[in-house]
Amino acid sequence: MGEALAAVAVRPRETELQTIALPDIAPDAGLLRVEATGVCGSDWPMYNSERGGARVLGHEMVGVIEKAGALAADRWGFKEGDRVALEEYLPCGHCEYCRSGEFRSCMSTDSRIPGAIRYGSTSVALGSGLWGGFARYLHLHPRTVMHRVPDGVPGHIAAMAIPLGNGFQWAYLDGAAGPGKTVVVQGPGQTGLACALAAKAAGADLVIMAGLKRDARRLEVARKLGADLTVAVDELDLVDEVSKATGGQMADLVIEASSAGPEILNTSIKLLRKRSMLILATRKGAIPNLDLDQLLGMQATVKGVRGHSFHSVELALRAMASGRYPLELLSTHVVGLGDVDTALRAVGGQTKMDIIHITVEPWKSEQRDPTFA
Amino acid sequence: MGEALAAVAVRPRETELQTIALPDIAPDAGLLRVEATGVCGSDWPMYNSERGGARVLGHEMVGVIEKAGALAADRWGFKEGDRVALEEYLPCGHCEYCRSGEFRSCMSTDSRIPGAIRYGSTSVALGSGLWGGFARYLHLHPRTVMHRVPDGVPGHIAAMAIPLGNGFQWAYLDGAAGPGKTVVVQGPGQTGLACALAAKAAGADLVIMAGLKRDARRLEVARKLGADLTVAVDELDLVDEVSKATGGQMADLVIEASSAGPEILNTSIKLLRKRSMLILATRKGAIPNLDLDQLLGMQATVKGVRGHSFHSVELALRAMASGRYPLELLSTHVVGLGDVDTALRAVGGQTKMDIIHITVEPWKSEQRDPTFA
Amino acid sequence: MGEALAAVAVRPRETELQTIALPDIAPDAGLLRVEATGVCGSDWPMYNSERGGARVLGHEMVGVIEKAGALAADRWGFKEGDRVALEEYLPCGHCEYCRSGEFRSCMSTDSRIPGAIRYGSTSVALGSGLWGGFARYLHLHPRTVMHRVPDGVPGHIAAMAIPLGNGFQWAYLDGAAGPGKTVVVQGPGQTGLACALAAKAAGADLVIMAGLKRDARRLEVARKLGADLTVAVDELDLVDEVSKATGGQMADLVIEASSAGPEILNTSIKLLRKRSMLILATRKGAIPNLDLDQLLGMQATVKGVRGHSFHSVELALRAMASGRYPLELLSTHVVGLGDVDTALRAVGGQTKMDIIHITVEPWKSEQRDPTFA
Amino acid sequence: MGEALAAVAVRPRETELQTIALPDIAPDAGLLRVEATGVCGSDWPMYNSERGGARVLGHEMVGVIEKAGALAADRWGFKEGDRVALEEYLPCGHCEYCRSGEFRSCMSTDSRIPGAIRYGSTSVALGSGLWGGFARYLHLHPRTVMHRVPDGVPGHIAAMAIPLGNGFQWAYLDGAAGPGKTVVVQGPGQTGLACALAAKAAGADLVIMAGLKRDARRLEVARKLGADLTVAVDELDLVDEVSKATGGQMADLVIEASSAGPEILNTSIKLLRKRSMLILATRKGAIPNLDLDQLLGMQATVKGVRGHSFHSVELALRAMASGRYPLELLSTHVVGLGDVDTALRAVGGQTKMDIIHITVEPWKSEQRDPTFA
Repeated sequence: MGEALAAVAVRPRETELQTIALPDIAPDAGLLRVEATGVCGSDWPMYNSERGGARVLGHEMVGVIEKAGALAADRWGFKEGDRVALEEYLPCGHCEYCRSGEFRSCMSTDSRIPGAIRYGSTSVALGSGLWGGFARYLHLHPRTVMHRVPDGVPGHIAAMAIPLGNGFQWAYLDGAAGPGKTVVVQGPGQTGLACALAAKAAGADLVIMAGLKRDARRLEVARKLGADLTVAVDELDLVDEVSKATGGQMADLVIEASSAGPEILNTSIKLLRKRSMLILATRKGAIPNLDLDQLLGMQATVKGVRGHSFHSVELALRAMASGRYPLELLSTHVVGLGDVDTALRAVGGQTKMDIIHITVEPWKSEQRDPTFA
Repeated sequence: MGEALAAVAVRPRETELQTIALPDIAPDAGLLRVEATGVCGSDWPMYNSERGGARVLGHEMVGVIEKAGALAADRWGFKEGDRVALEEYLPCGHCEYCRSGEFRSCMSTDSRIPGAIRYGSTSVALGSGLWGGFARYLHLHPRTVMHRVPDGVPGHIAAMAIPLGNGFQWAYLDGAAGPGKTVVVQGPGQTGLACALAAKAAGADLVIMAGLKRDARRLEVARKLGADLTVAVDELDLVDEVSKATGGQMADLVIEASSAGPEILNTSIKLLRKRSMLILATRKGAIPNLDLDQLLGMQATVKGVRGHSFHSVELALRAMASGRYPLELLSTHVVGLGDVDTALRAVGGQTKMDIIHITVEPWKSEQRDPTFA
Repeated sequence: MGEALAAVAVRPRETELQTIALPDIAPDAGLLRVEATGVCGSDWPMYNSERGGARVLGHEMVGVIEKAGALAADRWGFKEGDRVALEEYLPCGHCEYCRSGEFRSCMSTDSRIPGAIRYGSTSVALGSGLWGGFARYLHLHPRTVMHRVPDGVPGHIAAMAIPLGNGFQWAYLDGAAGPGKTVVVQGPGQTGLACALAAKAAGADLVIMAGLKRDARRLEVARKLGADLTVAVDELDLVDEVSKATGGQMADLVIEASSAGPEILNTSIKLLRKRSMLILATRKGAIPNLDLDQLLGMQATVKGVRGHSFHSVELALRAMASGRYPLELLSTHVVGLGDVDTALRAVGGQTKMDIIHITVEPWKSEQRDPTFA
Repeated sequence: MGEALAAVAVRPRETELQTIALPDIAPDAGLLRVEATGVCGSDWPMYNSERGGARVLGHEMVGVIEKAGALAADRWGFKEGDRVALEEYLPCGHCEYCRSGEFRSCMSTDSRIPGAIRYGSTSVALGSGLWGGFARYLHLHPRTVMHRVPDGVPGHIAAMAIPLGNGFQWAYLDGAAGPGKTVVVQGPGQTGLACALAAKAAGADLVIMAGLKRDARRLEVARKLGADLTVAVDELDLVDEVSKATGGQMADLVIEASSAGPEILNTSIKLLRKRSMLILATRKGAIPNLDLDQLLGMQATVKGVRGHSFHSVELALRAMASGRYPLELLSTHVVGLGDVDTALRAVGGQTKMDIIHITVEPWKSEQRDPTFA
């Protein structure tokens, strides 16, 4: 029996380093030695929330299976010693969504449903409490969804399997980016950049990334990942720029992945050509005066998306293994457990740091890194 | 050379019976002897509009080809004497939408584009002026899209090819209604009823038609066309009723085809299950406080639709020919040219009449029918 | 501890009634009290095979969960006392096919792969040996796929969930049967008839069932299930009949579900119109002189199909619950364990009996039924 | 009135240079000054055929509109002076295939239908006789399908719009090549190479081109166009090589575009993984012992393809304009009208020349080029 050091979110905007006893491993469960966990934009609202009590956050996890009960190993198709990337979802496995390949729609994974659990947002009071990636060990639930990490992909890259999977899901699988298409991505955060990468990987002719002047570095990364054009929308009119770049044809696909307020949606709608698609990936709150009539006139489609399918995460891992993309540019910081609070504030935009994707490596020194601020 | 009697919309909310000279027929044009023309809900705003000057309205036309220039006959695949149903669109034929089977998206058919022309909304000052169905003859434009009317389908039924085509387009081709699906249709007008019919024709398990108490007759027609359940939403809560009827599973497809205000959209969104679809068929104007976050949480899709593909109109004509559906129930009135004003006011809801689909037969007596009021 | 009476296929073309000890139930397993098991056409080659040693055949099972280990109940989403229909597949649950909703393609379910197991074809030497439906109890494997049987559906109807699921899978989900389509089904066996039913349920305009003169009863059942036309191909030329019925347009979808030899495929290809589809559901052995050039000229698609998705079986169960279809016509015989040999010979065409679907109810008397011969 | 020099195929395997009088141009027709015409593999069987009498071959045409009747200009959306690439099809424009974006399936374009006409295979006895691209002028039929050639694309590149369009059609639009996919192309001819290019353009992970030892140059071009691996199948076992390259996963898509005999199909079938697709692009004649049972066991799909949609040709033209692909490598020879016989024999494999795509430029000197042999 041992212990795991964990950054426990004890109250809004505060984690504490605690040691948590490792659980006995039931035949249908296991234990992951966490190698690296990405920090996601969605960690910020959870870090701020009163709901759910003390929790270990972090749900973009990579590690090595330290223990796997016999039933678990059979169910997962992985054994002790295997290096895996995990999904945050713990789907029931038997509902019609699970049986049809859409387990991210399973009610058991829906954080709005009471009793639903998922990695990175479950109380330490439940069982072992080791349900998040900002800890040295993770308790592997029987319903865990795992992916093999290809050899040679380092932890801080593999820790982007989820956001990069979102990119392939939204831009390629949901949005049908491909040859001949013009794609506009709103918001150069980690998922926006992942969408731009995936759109180019799928052969889109023209990918335009829209951000703000202060996103200069992110826009530069977008161009290095393949974006053909970037626009700072506080400098230039996005509708004009898209019109110019397309000879007035406008966009086949617009992906709204920004944290901007609801008014950005009417801009997105103005970017759409006939029979095009708007992917809506970020919540906007109540939306005043949305111009749905324009959308209808264009016979356009709006698709609300959340997360990734199994296949999209596999696509992300293959893209990592291919060596074709400069993914190191996305991974701007790698820190230890002592820096989880700073990392969470950084993804919430509360620091001056110019971050894209931060990885927490829980086995690094737990001392704070003075250069990370 | 002859003349055609026509109901010309000379100013907002007023038509006059005029005689218009028949045109010489160019080798790439033709002349239709109009047998029957349906009155569409969209005729009402055109009847009210100042825009476009005097026009012959009416765009759901059935008739016999009286003359066809040699080039026209070859282009259309029809000859003099053929009985045809026409589409309102006059697509260019060479843009990427036209070449890809989506000619309803052709800019030439878009009434918002200056210079675009279509049947039923083009000025009498252009050429012969015979560009609408509320007249005894129609000047056949080279770009006309025609369908053969199966033998035995009477004119007042064939005159519903367009609205019934919309039903097959939105419920089946766009909405994927089929076995196992629950479909809710908002608004029991002619297109709403057509959607209900098409959804059942495509095998939907459960079709629910929502209307108002005052729509009692229309809801009864819906049931006779196959709807499994009808709900008067000013009597019962639609969300509750759909939940009850589906054991809490809610709808796979919601079709918004009502003339209700924008607030109905938030109700429609509440009817959606995960991964479902909302078809948006009617304009709503500015929409306050639309709950797009709920839509995103459900990973749902909103599709803006306008009109029909060639295939959907063929499906409508085959449904008519099959004799499987009690379509006479939809055709509530057949009138002559003298009653065009009353008919237009009726579809605009300005009369007490309980109408669904009205057909104008221009060769009937031009006297007003005293029972039609 | 008890025992289960079972019809064990001890050698080719012979079963013996044996009693098999009930197993202890592990936490991830369970026991089904078998209510009814359908006899499938594919049981015949298994009954004839030397491969796999002694086995309990039968894989279209319905029953009540007698015991469910705690882990199993959670994994399956069912508890003791629930009445369920089972799939024959025992998919691994973690490969890309399983995670993507296509578990019937999982290598673990593929009988050509050594070590693959599935219900109805697994040796009695493995574990408890209770791996088939022609027995009073079935040992529930952790990887079992289950469906809730709607209230009021009797066992001998629910035992058709698999073949009727195949019908929905092949005709509707794979074949896209729907409004406006002409569908030809070759072979009025239980799956062929299920395809005809599903094609009509999905709204196909014209469903043509092809069989032989000696299939007169089956063709009559086809018509009662909705087929618009039946053709005995040893009386009339099928290509001519389809041409006549469609005005020369030919078929949008041909489903080859017959046990005829390979030469039937060239007939099927002649039935195809441009851009149509041929569903290939039965093995044909080596095929001499297949006219693929004709298929290419028609730009047609051939889809090889095996079995059913989870969704298609749900559609079958809903169709049963709806009461809309005269399914009793398909269930021609219900027998006890003493008649398993006769039933297997009957599906193999070795008897004079006019059968469609036979159900074995293992709790019926084990005496042979003298009228079943 | 003028004349056009034309290479007329007067009898099997022989063309003669003749002058043909230019036609009067009707209001619905036009005249193209031919700039460049590609030589297609399908020209070889036409060159060998007795059928159809004397004809001007050549159907991959690029040129400038010299004259356009007023009706024609409106119908085509092009005017005199425009530089265009033409499709070989002259679709009727009004059948359900034409109205649904699949005009290549229109019966009017089907050379097996009596009376069907298309560019490059129509008798000189019909009208002006100028119906093929191996001539200085082409008579533009009213039903011509045209594409704008982007500025800066030279004629001998634009003359590949049709074969490159086939590549986008088969690999991307029909075959769904994209991220994560393994694609094998059989046959490194011009369309096979186009498929490889299109598959990589659409983001396929692994593209494998299979040919023969003697195709060394073509396989090298394949690699330069993006193919990840090439296999000479008379040196190495293709099934083994694909298995090695994919870790036993095999191919998602196999495109059969070779001129090999029917036995290659069983090899192609062995390359397929579960749920994969085989695109069949070349006729094989009678096929002995095709292993369709293996195809069925893999639940695979075979799609017969012919030609290109409008959209696929647009994709080809955009790929040309992008400058992203070394298309000059495909264009191995540019010759004048005097070399049409040699060019046709070369595509038929009757010469020692190492050709990929040959362009005929009819305004070049009509003298034979002594280096082209």
